[in-house]
Formats: sequence, C-alpha cells, structure tokens
Amino acid sequence: MGLNQPFLDPVSDTQPGPRNLITDVAGVTVGQVTINTGHHHTGVTVIRPTRDNVFLAKCPAAVHVINGFGKSTGTIQINELGTLETPIVLTNTFAVGTAQNALIGELLAANPAIGDSTGTVNPVVMECNDGEINDIRDRIISEQDVLTALNTTTETVEEGAVGAGTGMCCYDLKGGVGSASRTIDIDGHRFTMGAFVLSNYGFLRDLNIYNVPVGAQLAAFQAAEKAKEKGSIVTVLATDIPFNSRQLRRIAKRASVGITRTGAFIGNGSGELVLAFSTANRVPHFSHHELSQQQAISDDRFDRYFRMTVAVVEEAVLSVLTHATTMIDRKGQPRLSLRDAIDQYLAVHPTAQLTELKHQLGLIP
Amino acid sequence: MGLNQPFLDPVSDTQPGPRNLITDVAGVTVGQVTINTGHHHTGVTVIRPTRDNVFLAKCPAAVHVINGFGKSTGTIQINELGTLETPIVLTNTFAVGTAQNALIGELLAANPAIGDSTGTVNPVVMECNDGEINDIRDRIISEQDVLTALNTTTETVEEGAVGAGTGMCCYDLKGGVGSASRTIDIDGHRFTMGAFVLSNYGFLRDLNIYNVPVGAQLAAFQAAEKAKEKGSIVTVLATDIPFNSRQLRRIAKRASVGITRTGAFIGNGSGELVLAFSTANRVPHFSHHELSQQQAISDDRFDRYFRMTVAVVEEAVLSVLTHATTMIDRKGQPRLSLRDAIDQYLAVHPTAQLTELKHQLGLIP
Amino acid sequence: MGLNQPFLDPVSDTQPGPRNLITDVAGVTVGQVTINTGHHHTGVTVIRPTRDNVFLAKCPAAVHVINGFGKSTGTIQINELGTLETPIVLTNTFAVGTAQNALIGELLAANPAIGDSTGTVNPVVMECNDGEINDIRDRIISEQDVLTALNTTTETVEEGAVGAGTGMCCYDLKGGVGSASRTIDIDGHRFTMGAFVLSNYGFLRDLNIYNVPVGAQLAAFQAAEKAKEKGSIVTVLATDIPFNSRQLRRIAKRASVGITRTGAFIGNGSGELVLAFSTANRVPHFSHHELSQQQAISDDRFDRYFRMTVAVVEEAVLSVLTHATTMIDRKGQPRLSLRDAIDQYLAVHPTAQLTELKHQLGLIP
Amino acid sequence: MGLNQPFLDPVSDTQPGPRNLITDVAGVTVGQVTINTGHHHTGVTVIRPTRDNVFLAKCPAAVHVINGFGKSTGTIQINELGTLETPIVLTNTFAVGTAQNALIGELLAANPAIGDSTGTVNPVVMECNDGEINDIRDRIISEQDVLTALNTTTETVEEGAVGAGTGMCCYDLKGGVGSASRTIDIDGHRFTMGAFVLSNYGFLRDLNIYNVPVGAQLAAFQAAEKAKEKGSIVTVLATDIPFNSRQLRRIAKRASVGITRTGAFIGNGSGELVLAFSTANRVPHFSHHELSQQQAISDDRFDRYFRMTVAVVEEAVLSVLTHATTMIDRKGQPRLSLRDAIDQYLAVHPTAQLTELKHQLGLIP
Repeated sequence: MGLNQPFLDPVSDTQPGPRNLITDVAGVTVGQVTINTGHHHTGVTVIRPTRDNVFLAKCPAAVHVINGFGKSTGTIQINELGTLETPIVLTNTFAVGTAQNALIGELLAANPAIGDSTGTVNPVVMECNDGEINDIRDRIISEQDVLTALNTTTETVEEGAVGAGTGMCCYDLKGGVGSASRTIDIDGHRFTMGAFVLSNYGFLRDLNIYNVPVGAQLAAFQAAEKAKEKGSIVTVLATDIPFNSRQLRRIAKRASVGITRTGAFIGNGSGELVLAFSTANRVPHFSHHELSQQQAISDDRFDRYFRMTVAVVEEAVLSVLTHATTMIDRKGQPRLSLRDAIDQYLAVHPTAQLTELKHQLGLIP
Repeated sequence: MGLNQPFLDPVSDTQPGPRNLITDVAGVTVGQVTINTGHHHTGVTVIRPTRDNVFLAKCPAAVHVINGFGKSTGTIQINELGTLETPIVLTNTFAVGTAQNALIGELLAANPAIGDSTGTVNPVVMECNDGEINDIRDRIISEQDVLTALNTTTETVEEGAVGAGTGMCCYDLKGGVGSASRTIDIDGHRFTMGAFVLSNYGFLRDLNIYNVPVGAQLAAFQAAEKAKEKGSIVTVLATDIPFNSRQLRRIAKRASVGITRTGAFIGNGSGELVLAFSTANRVPHFSHHELSQQQAISDDRFDRYFRMTVAVVEEAVLSVLTHATTMIDRKGQPRLSLRDAIDQYLAVHPTAQLTELKHQLGLIP
Repeated sequence: MGLNQPFLDPVSDTQPGPRNLITDVAGVTVGQVTINTGHHHTGVTVIRPTRDNVFLAKCPAAVHVINGFGKSTGTIQINELGTLETPIVLTNTFAVGTAQNALIGELLAANPAIGDSTGTVNPVVMECNDGEINDIRDRIISEQDVLTALNTTTETVEEGAVGAGTGMCCYDLKGGVGSASRTIDIDGHRFTMGAFVLSNYGFLRDLNIYNVPVGAQLAAFQAAEKAKEKGSIVTVLATDIPFNSRQLRRIAKRASVGITRTGAFIGNGSGELVLAFSTANRVPHFSHHELSQQQAISDDRFDRYFRMTVAVVEEAVLSVLTHATTMIDRKGQPRLSLRDAIDQYLAVHPTAQLTELKHQLGLIP
Repeated sequence: MGLNQPFLDPVSDTQPGPRNLITDVAGVTVGQVTINTGHHHTGVTVIRPTRDNVFLAKCPAAVHVINGFGKSTGTIQINELGTLETPIVLTNTFAVGTAQNALIGELLAANPAIGDSTGTVNPVVMECNDGEINDIRDRIISEQDVLTALNTTTETVEEGAVGAGTGMCCYDLKGGVGSASRTIDIDGHRFTMGAFVLSNYGFLRDLNIYNVPVGAQLAAFQAAEKAKEKGSIVTVLATDIPFNSRQLRRIAKRASVGITRTGAFIGNGSGELVLAFSTANRVPHFSHHELSQQQAISDDRFDRYFRMTVAVVEEAVLSVLTHATTMIDRKGQPRLSLRDAIDQYLAVHPTAQLTELKHQLGLIP
C-alpha cells in the first residue's frame, strides 16, 4: 500500500496505482512466509512476475549491481540473455541455497521438459543478512517455507517486518519489506511501474526524510551503535512498459538514487542489487519462428521514467520504515520502529518538526 | 577553495585540507584557459596528476560511468591497465579532438620514445556540452588554448565560470568548475582526497541545498525552461591514499551519491563520468624488474572513505554554484548565478530560509 | 572481396555475399585515403553504416572490448544508448583527435540542429598504432584526409595495405584492412553480415592458417623480432539482422574467436575492440511517438550467428594477409607480405604444405 | 597429471610443474565425490585454495564471464571486493543450492564469528549441466556428498569422468574434469599457475587437436547429434604470482583462448566462467591496521602469462578428453571417450594421422 499519506518528494509528478504496490503491474503477485519463533526472526518473500508460466514465456529483465557485497544468484544469466524465467525469491543470506532448491523443485514440477528434453533453469534468489535480529546461523528456513510463499502469492502485499523482511533493519531502525507503484501515460496508453524493496541498509545518523534530518536527532538521542558490516538493500522493479533489457538496466541504475535519497551513501558492506523486469514483450522458451514483432520505446523521454523510478523506490523504502514495528532482536534488545523511535524522542524533546513528520508519514493512527 | 563557509552536510566528519582544493593532494596542479568573446563562452581546464612526468611513472586509476551519454576519451585503457599516464583535460564536447591533439603533442615533445621505441600514449579528455551558453558549433578552442592550460598549472584554482566551466550550467543556473578536499588519518598517517567537478547537470526544480528545496522555489518564480538533452557532470578524484584500481572504482562510484545529493537524479542526457586516481604506488613505464613492493589498504573501513567522497564531491558541486557568476548566454539571455537567482526571489518573496541559506553558503560578501 | 579462393575453415556453413565485403550489407559503404610518402605510411578508412543521415536515424549498436589497450572513442555512449549515430573512422592512434574533428565538422554541416536546438553528437573513431612502419610521431593525417575518405565511400573496398591499414602489421607480416561477408536465411528471409578489420596484431610464430603452423616455420626462417607493445585489431561488424544492442554485444564477443583462430592469444598490448551494428530497426533522433513496433529475433538459434561471426572475422583477417603487399618501413626495412615471406621460405625449403597453402589462399596469380 | 605425453601446442614455452596439476600451486588441494548409480552419473569437486582458513586470510580473485548462460554463484562479491573466501565447489546445475548449503555449513562450523559477531560469507559454487548423461532432475547430490568432497581434498587429483565431471560431455564425447600446471621464473623466483576445468562444452564437428580436425572426421563417422543447449565449461585458475584482482581478470579472460583453441566458438548455451585466484598477498578478515605492504607485479610482460594461461587451460581440456572413459548415459546410449571414438573410426578407416594423434595424446597404453 506504500505510505498511507501522500508521498511528498516532488521528484516525479506520477501518481500511485490503485494499490500503490508492485502488484499494480498486471500479473505480478507476492507471497510471504514470516517466521518469528524464539530468537528466529526471518522469512521468505516471493515475487511472481506473471500469472502464467514465466519459464515458458520469459520476461525481459536486467540486473544492476550498485554495490556487490552480496550473494544473490541468477544474475549472470539474466544479464547475458536479458530474461527472467522464474519467480524471484527474497530471503536471508544463508537461505539462498535452500530457496534455490525449492525454486528448482517447483520449476521441475511445472515443466517436465527442464533437465530432460530442454536445458536447465536459472533460479533467482536475492538476499540480505538479517543476522542483527535473527539467529541466522541456525538456518531455520526450509524448502517448505519457500514453497509456501511460492504457492500463496496474491495481489495483496503486507509490508514491514514480514516475509523476507521479518528480521531486517533499515537505518538501524526496524526494517523489512516495502512496496509502491506509479502510473504513467505514454502515447495515450497507461503503464505502471512497481517497486518492491527488502531493506536492511543505512546508518541511523544519515536518515533524512522530507528534508528533516531525523536520523541525526534520533541517533544522538539513542546513541545507537551499528556494526560495520550489516547493510544491503535489494530492489525489484516491475513494469509493463516495453523496455528492453538495456533500458531496464538504465532504469535499475536509478534505483540507487531512490535508495540514497533518504540519506544513505552505498556502504561498503551493503549488497545493493536491483532487478528490473518488464511484463511486455514476453520471450517464448519454445518458438517456431526466430523473427517476431515487438513493442519498443525510445530512450528520448527517459527522464520521466527515471524520476518515476526514484520516486517509487524512495516511497518503497519509506513504506518499510512506516510499516515495520518494533521487534526484540536475538540478543533481547529492542530494534525500534521509526514511529517508536520518534515517539521516544518526542517524549523528551517535543518538537513541531518531528511531530509534523509523523503526520506526513501517516504514523499517527 | 571550496565553499567559503563551512560545509554543512554531516555525511562525513573529515575536514578540508589547507586550500580546500584538489591541489591539496601533493603534486596535483590545475591550469585553466577561459574564453569569453562575443557569443563564445568556453574554455579548458587541465589537471596534472603529478609534478613529474606521469607517462614515465603512471598513477593507479579507474573510471566509472554513472551515465554514458558522453564523449570522454581514454577511459578504455585506464580500466584495462588501471593507470593514468597523461594530464587530464576538461573542455567542451566539440573540443575533445583538439584537446587530444594538444595533449599528444605535449606528450610526444616530453617523451621522445613514444611512438618510436616504445608504444603510444593514452590521452584523457573529459567533456560537457556548454552549448546552452556557448556557441559550441563554432569550435573556438584551439590546440594552443589547451597547451596554455597545460603549461600554466598551479596549486591555485579559480572556481566558477572559468576554464572548461566557462559556459556550463548547473541546475539550470550558471555552472562551471568547483573543487574541494578532505584529509583523513589512516594508521597514524595523514592522507588527502580532492575532488574537481565540471558541472553542467541538473534541473532547477530539483535543487536542494542543506535540506532547503531552493530549486523548487526558484523554478516556480523563474518559470525557467530547460531543454531535455543538456546535462553532464564530470568528476575527477585525486588522492594519495594507496588505493588500487579496483578500490578507486569503488570510490569513484560514490561520487554519484555526492552528485545526486543536491537533488539530481542522473538524467538521460547526462554524461556522468568519474575518474579517480592515486598518487601512491606509481607504476613505472620502463622497469627493470617485474616484482615490487607496494603499499596496500584494506577494504574494511571503506565506509569512511565513501563518506569522505560523498562530502568532497557534494562540496565541489556547491562550490561551483557559489562561485559561478551570472552570464549572458549566446542568445542574449542571462544565465543567473545561484546568488542572483536567490536575490531576485528574495526581492519579491523575502524569506528567512533563503536568507539563511545565502549566509550558510557564504553568498553574503 | 575477401579471399579469392573459397574460405576453408568449416566453422560455419554460410556463404559469402556477392562482393564478400562488408558492403554486402545494404547501405554500408567504405571510403579510404592512403598515404605513402617518404617514411609515412598511414591513412584513413571510413565505414558509413547507411546511405542516409545516420544521425537522424541511428543504428542499434554495441561495442565489446576484448582487450582495452586502445584509444578508440565513442564507445561509452554506444553502450549506454545502444546506438551508432555517425560514420565510423578508422585511422592511426595519433590521428584520433583529427578524425573526431573532421567527423564533427561533417556532422555539424549536415545537421544544423546539432549543438544548437538539439544536443551534440558522438563521433566514433577506432585506431591501431602503425608506428612500426609509419613515422607516427609526425602526425601526417589531416582533417581533409578524413573528409576525403568520408566523401568517397562506395560499395567497392580495396583491401590490404590501404586506408587505415596502410602502415599496419599482422602477425609481424604486412597487415592492413580486410573484409568479408556471409548471408543466412532466417524464417525464409535472407540476411547478411559483413566484417571489416583493421589488423595490426599477432606474433609471427603463432600464425596458423588452415591447420598449417606457417608462422612457426616462417619465424624460424626469418628470425624476426617483434617489439612487445604493438598489436591491436579493430573489428566492425555490420548486419541487417534485427539484433538489439544486447544481442549485438553477444555477436561482437565472438569476433575474438575469429581473431584468435589464426593463432593469436589477445596480447597485453593489443587494443582489441569490436563494434557491431544493425541496419534494422533504425532509431529516429526526432520522434513524435515514444512507442513503436520493431522487428525482434530470438536468442535461441544464436549458435549459427556465432559461427557465422567467427567465419566472417577470420576470413577478413586472412583477407588482410593475402591482400597486403610488402612495404619498406620507416627504418628502411622490408615488412614482408605473407606471400613474399612464404616465397622466400619456399626458395630455401620447398615444401608441399606451404605450396598448397599458397594455392588455398589464392596467393598464386 | 595433465596429458601423459608432452603437450604439443607451442603457444607457451613454459613447462608443467611436478604434478602437472592445479595442486602444484602450493596449498591448493582437490577433493572429489563420484556418483555412478543407475542412471545417475554426477558428482562434486572441491578446490581448496589454501591449506589454512581462507575465510580468515582471503585470496585475491576475479571472475570473468565469457558467456553468461550459467548459474554459478558467489561471483558478484568476488568482483566487488576482489577476494575469494571459501573453497570452490563444482557440481551439476541443480546441485548449486545444496552445495551452497554444505559450504555455508562448513564455514559456520569453522568460523563461529560468521553470522554472529562478523558478517556473512560468500560461498562459491560453479556448475555445468550434466543432464545429457545424468538424470539431473532427480537431484541426487546431497549436502553430505559435498562435505565429503570438502573433507577429503588432497594434492592428488583424479581426472576424467570423476567428481563434478562424472556426467559431463566434451565436444560431444565423454567429458569431465581435467587439470594442468605451468611454472615460470620471474625476477629470479619460480612461480606456478594451475588450471582446473569442468568441461561440458563443444560440438564434435569442431574438435581440433594439434591441427588435426579430428572432430570433423569423427562426426561424419558417428553422425552424432547434439542438442543445442548443452555446453558450459567452468575454469579455475590458481597461481602464486602476486596478481591483483584487476590482473587476475586479465588472466582469466585468456582462458577463453585456451578453451576455443580446440575448435569451440563459445556457444549460445554455454555457461563459460573463469575464476582466477592468487595465493599471494592474502587479505586478512580481521586486521589491526588498514595499511600494509604487498608484493606487486607489473603488467609489462603479461604476454608470457597470457601464453601460459592459454597453454595450461588448453592442456587441461585435452586432459579431460584423454582421461574420460566411455560411459552409458541415462538413456542407455554410450557416450564415447575420445580414445574409443578414434578407435572405432580407425577400425574402419585406418589413417596414419589419427594413429599418430593417439600416440601424441598418450592414448596408447
């Protein structure tokens, strides 16, 4: 649902779609499994790019690596062939192998030709390290968890500390998953772009929302410490605009502007990957002809798509911060939500600026 | 000199060097030729990486392309071999060939072996399009202009609408060149990083300085129009930290955060390249031995170098905006300086916020 | 004309087009200026991708860097935007700036909007170092030479030691320029691919033609010495197959197989760049609509295009060797043609194998 | 052991190390698990880069993607940080997740800090599709198999249809794993480079050994058919030469020359990745100081390292072909070894050339 108040960064004049979620892109659905047991706080999120079999009709796609301190898989083939052919699984760093296994399992079951009369399949798994909050060494996520997420995708998407975002942090506050969407008219036709972020990055001192350096105030108040190697934010961009893979890479690159717009600087330990795909111009796995006609879009007016990308990613990040709720981490310490952190601050230092920010972000019930 | 008031973005706690210029990095000097005649407003800036012959003792280097809508040359070899072997010339888009010719001329004169008993040389020229203000089609820059800049480099650097920056714009205001520096202590030794930007990018509506959306206010007031394809910002980063070329590329990537931190979004038509070089671990052109010892630095604490990079680049951009003065463009229209634009606004809408911003930026004499 | 005997590498079953030249791709023309005066042996070759104004209707394109020890220009923008918008100039390393100037001059003359009401233009110049044979330090090539080549392009292409290839070497023998073409049927339609190489690479000892290690025999006989830093081969691939820029990059990568198939190993000092463009799906500079329909081709059966690429590039290299004639270099030493080198060898060591190779290569009048 | 006759490609004058295996690089060991049960023919190969804990003291490394139709993991972080921090597991395409899980398990057990007081770890798994011979859909490989390979690494390496190579093909003949090594003197010190390939690529018709187009003869004889999407060859290069990651990438690129030198052309469906690492200049995970001294090597004389790379990779490929033995595939058809294929051919067409080739390759007991 994105923010439940209008997004105020004027970078783009585009408006959200009906759900303000990545699922506003027709065919995209999301499924999530959330694990909160003892000192385990982790989970799985699956983004299905299409309602039909994406292996048989692949989506044009590209991956951009903003900073490569990460362990996501499937990116090499996407960039070679320019296509996505599986659902995208997001999870914690040590569950990547398990997620691949589950994904392969599902693909094999749905496609008897794979590994027999046709080639293999390229499972896409993206990850962040939730080890600050979750006891990640226990590797609690099972293939069944992944399959459950795969088999329960819908157009409704819960945001915040759920699914793969369950144990994540964001600017040292409680992080998680977030989504938003934008629509745009091109040559008289309406198109949609949606963003989904798994957000585990940033230092509190840097957090800046709507030109309010809220993080510096909160950090001074909390004296929060952050270990150096956390980080990472994974972004998925979906659209029905007929971008080709080169253009999708250009779009994906602008996610970094949306990500840093709240104050981050692309930290050393941050695995920042962006996967962008289009649901237009599907590429058949088996085809009778090599030549075909497809829709194309010129690069000429890309500035408005870039602005839209910045906006939809930034709102998705803010949506993480506004939806995530305070959680007790694996060491028994509270990881505060943005709302709780501001409230604690306001209890001691009541200021109009932060009070207004709460309103702007919809943090007042 | 960077800003003449302290830089207020708290992203890094590093302090400027004595000159707050790229020339704070020992050995780096800058020369500029400024052309302002009739409807020609253009020029040349040369950055010499070392006082001695850089062809004979090359600098580790890397180039990062943020957005490749640009015509800079010399980047392929830098990224293959990881070294810079000539001064860097900045100029307008259509003077790249002339600058290459002049650079080759100087290198041939200084190195009789080039093209005879040893190989060739890789001239590095970076460019932005000053065609909004300058009648770029006339191609007024001569090889002599480039040679003059090459032969008059010093540690003093004029900023604003001079040298290659003479005819450039920045956020639709008058742009140009700017520089800043930072020092940092590593294992008890002091090191320096300097930035130099040729800044011709951005839309006025997006300009944001110190959390003040000054551009939106000015744009509404000026109703300024901007053609879509201008843009570009070229950044040179110099340091004596012993980064290798892989690490210099990581550093170079963070320039994009410094560049977008004032509100830009990496426009479609923007040629955004970053060249980073180190004056440590010089690489001899002729060497008796293949093996040598060199200084290395771990990636472990790169966050502070990344923060420093963001700060020094952002200050260099602000330094452009505060040093550039209003100029009449090739069509007879004034291209306002930031100061004049704010003053015109304040004359009609006196506001405390913009008045304070002028003070913070040192725009009050 | 490629080889004047059938090409015998069975890597691809495709056949040459009517001219066996890059100009078999409809619209592609080539112009050359050859300079042979005193110790100057150099020149210019221009490849026009289309008969009409390529700036107004750009060609999908991609550049692949096999080894980046080179100074070619224009590659950054081609890879960002996926288009070629000027003729391609090939020349010697120190004439790149002059060639850019000439190219810009022509583009400005033909397009009054450039640098005025629209943006700039991205001149593409590729180079090798002919300094073994040519006194490259004298920089004898003028803008007029480049303009002459630009204005005299035709479908007839002279090969060997002409144009940009005048002073080049190939496997330490006399090199130069060469071309070949192939046709292929796709879904019942006939398409063409053409290659043009500027060949200045390789060590004699490595030369292998049709499984005959001719270079090792000749090298032992000649005791030829080769300085370490020569090298470089620039390849241009043209086709009317509707490849997009991602696919053109895949195609371009296979040029390296064609290049090494005669025995080379991609030397350290070799600037090996490949530029591939398609004349299908032209991209308008000014367009009323963003959306359009274009032809697309699946990646499924790319093996046959890869094979065709290997073949057409290898034949172009052999065409260089068979067309280039012995030349006296800048130091008064003869740089033998392949034919003369074999003949000298055969005069002392008459062998059936090399005699047959001469026949196979059409080196017998 | 590489070939058991001297390698005859004269591309490099370097000689094999004592074992002619990747384990000639001090510290490198290899472990393999081979599965041959029913229609399952698959396995695991582990290359340990060092005898000590590579996570605590990482190896400089780089990955080069020749063709990205592959699913290997861990490459993004290697290229960002320039280091390898785990053993390398080679296996079949659908066992990548399982191998990652096993690798993470071992790393967690050996390093209690991972995922607790320090960050995560980047498991490296490389793969080819053995689905022609192996019933890959059954996913028979277990974590225990991977752990067994991890825990039984030695300096002795079996080659051919063993370990990860058990079910692989090579030029449509029986493929598998192969290794070779070379030594070289640099400034009076002896260094070693070793290659290890998992070889599943190539079309029989293209196979060319020592200038004998043996594949064309065998293909005509066998009338062998090959499905289009098999392919892939994964190469690991180990050395104690103090290359940095940029240089290791340059080295890795030359593996493609070694790979194609037997006739292949980098097919569309081939996942061709090269991972190169150095055991010099280890990078500590925990370090007290950021600055250090390390050994460096100039790029000046890289041609001889490139030649060495080509040779060692080509010999490793030939070693696969000479060690692999005929196997009955999952469909009951024999996948012939090179020796058996030649013998069948010679039984009908006795030719001196192929008989000599058998001798040269050591295929005569």
